[in-house]
Amino acid sequence: MSEDLPHPDRAEIRIEAVLHALADPVRLHYVRELDRIGTGVACGAIELPVTKSTRTHHLRTLREAGVIRMRKEGTARIATIRRDDLDARYPGLLNAVLSAES
Amino acid sequence: MSEDLPHPDRAEIRIEAVLHALADPVRLHYVRELDRIGTGVACGAIELPVTKSTRTHHLRTLREAGVIRMRKEGTARIATIRRDDLDARYPGLLNAVLSAES
Repeated sequence: MSEDLPHPDRAEIRIEAVLHALADPVRLHYVRELDRIGTGVACGAIELPVTKSTRTHHLRTLREAGVIRMRKEGTARIATIRRDDLDARYPGLLNAVLSAES
Repeated sequence: MSEDLPHPDRAEIRIEAVLHALADPVRLHYVRELDRIGTGVACGAIELPVTKSTRTHHLRTLREAGVIRMRKEGTARIATIRRDDLDARYPGLLNAVLSAES
């Protein structure tokens, strides 16, 4: 298990970037699905109604904002929500967003 | 006191629009200042490091997202945060965002 993509450290996460990342309906759907599934999932396992390149863009936006972590397991890439980091930096934010009606 | 600009009803507020509105550093600064001041303020009273037309755009984005309400009092336009509506729709969200370090 090794990380191959850059992630911001907890202290580097910025509220504007987190809000921007979550403001897109496709990305918000992805994060809600990740939350619903609970454990890390292969990043292709959640279907999104977009092209592969757009999907890649969305996942990069979430990763670079510090919302999700991507790690390699063998040939798979596993995505998880950075709940501990987000809850530590912005208490209540993630729950408020994930429980919101759209 | 009459409203002259359209505002979404509480039930029409959408989480994506609220997050988008708050994701911009200038708009977030404006909302934080509104929150700090507490009561409604003439919408020009909070200085923003942008041109007048950009300022107008930012305030419209906040209003149309349901984050702020603008009302006329005489010749002034008064801005307030729609805290009741936002707290009812997305409990905890506004506090989490406003108390966040940037």
